[in-house]
Amino acid sequence: MLAEAQPPAAAAATSSLQQLHFEIERLNSDYARILDDERFEEFPDLFVDDCLYRVVPRENHLLGLPIAAIHCESKGMIKDRVYAARESTMAEPRTLRHFITNLRILEAGGEEIRAEANVLLVQTMINRMTEIVLSGFYLDRIVRSDGRFLFKERLCVYDSLLLPTSLIAPV
Amino acid sequence: MLAEAQPPAAAAATSSLQQLHFEIERLNSDYARILDDERFEEFPDLFVDDCLYRVVPRENHLLGLPIAAIHCESKGMIKDRVYAARESTMAEPRTLRHFITNLRILEAGGEEIRAEANVLLVQTMINRMTEIVLSGFYLDRIVRSDGRFLFKERLCVYDSLLLPTSLIAPV
Amino acid sequence: MLAEAQPPAAAAATSSLQQLHFEIERLNSDYARILDDERFEEFPDLFVDDCLYRVVPRENHLLGLPIAAIHCESKGMIKDRVYAARESTMAEPRTLRHFITNLRILEAGGEEIRAEANVLLVQTMINRMTEIVLSGFYLDRIVRSDGRFLFKERLCVYDSLLLPTSLIAPV
Repeated sequence: MLAEAQPPAAAAATSSLQQLHFEIERLNSDYARILDDERFEEFPDLFVDDCLYRVVPRENHLLGLPIAAIHCESKGMIKDRVYAARESTMAEPRTLRHFITNLRILEAGGEEIRAEANVLLVQTMINRMTEIVLSGFYLDRIVRSDGRFLFKERLCVYDSLLLPTSLIAPV
Repeated sequence: MLAEAQPPAAAAATSSLQQLHFEIERLNSDYARILDDERFEEFPDLFVDDCLYRVVPRENHLLGLPIAAIHCESKGMIKDRVYAARESTMAEPRTLRHFITNLRILEAGGEEIRAEANVLLVQTMINRMTEIVLSGFYLDRIVRSDGRFLFKERLCVYDSLLLPTSLIAPV
Repeated sequence: MLAEAQPPAAAAATSSLQQLHFEIERLNSDYARILDDERFEEFPDLFVDDCLYRVVPRENHLLGLPIAAIHCESKGMIKDRVYAARESTMAEPRTLRHFITNLRILEAGGEEIRAEANVLLVQTMINRMTEIVLSGFYLDRIVRSDGRFLFKERLCVYDSLLLPTSLIAPV
């Protein structure tokens, strides 16, 4: 088997990276599931207290422009945001579903892990077929806190210039 | 590397869960591939004899309502279903493709594994662009049988209230 | 835990396959990211010199017909192709995003690995919502070269009979 051709040190590094990859995937899947189930009250607990959560169009991200669809500079601001989302989505029911794929660990040597992953978000409204809300990618700084991984920073960079109307809830 | 900060027992548990995760992902990918290739005759063999396979709208699932788009209470009923699918899809050709992502193992301690995963199903009909059929999630009870994993129960909970016309084939 | 019920030899084989799976997933994610970021100049380096890269409609693939949307028989031809893509996409800006899921290792015993995975490609054009370009699957022959995995052969088999207009760039 080709995998066995690796020298032991390289194999150990791969194994460790593999475990990290597995755990970050689990974090992403928990993230998706909490949002898809509209368990918004659990959403802030995916972040550390001193965090950054932003949802920005790709164009602005590439150009370094500050405008964001969602901008939260702390866990407290995220709590405010999901409270607003809870109120709003009751008015216009829809089901959102996240597909987070192709996770890449960019850096894992130090105190924090830098990672990215693609995201496809679709929504289903009553009496409508399922449609794409947005595609994009997450750009993350993740830290270990009390034995679990949490977001220190999550940027959701979406490909459209149009603001999807459903961007009331976190993405 | 952060992954090495785990105590040995926790690391062993992670490794074991990781392996399980890998094998359930493989089951899901086999499942997707069998349906996408329309190898319907192989589909029932993904289930144990005494099984439950249901395709239900999310609304009904949440409210506990019994109505289902597909309801099979045994491997025999699944065989009947795929026979019907084989006949029907010959009349109106389309290609279906499954994207099963964000697998989560919910419980793995006992005789069976409980897991869930998001699913996006798209279809391509002749002279039409590819379009979304449904989004939703699988809710599974999986058992090990003769060295491989099989479904004891698979619920496909889809987000729409509308019945997609292509729900003749299993999802 | 069910995963521990495996005999040691089977567990070792699973572990080795698991590692291989992890590395091929990483290759696919690198592939997706390079194309999504339009870093076309890095794209040929995902292939060995003597390679085959084809993008073909599923119908042609199943019937063994030779016509392809993209056909490159060497790394040099891939370089030509991405040069053309670079020129063309400047004229009509769009953002593409790949979702590569449900990887399956088909064969891993010998010099090369055979694998497949589903792919969903979406695009976002200025002032338009995100839409599906194509669904399909990759069929790969992968080799290890200088410690990393590279494509010896990548077929992208897409489900539509229609030629998507955006098939200027590699898929």
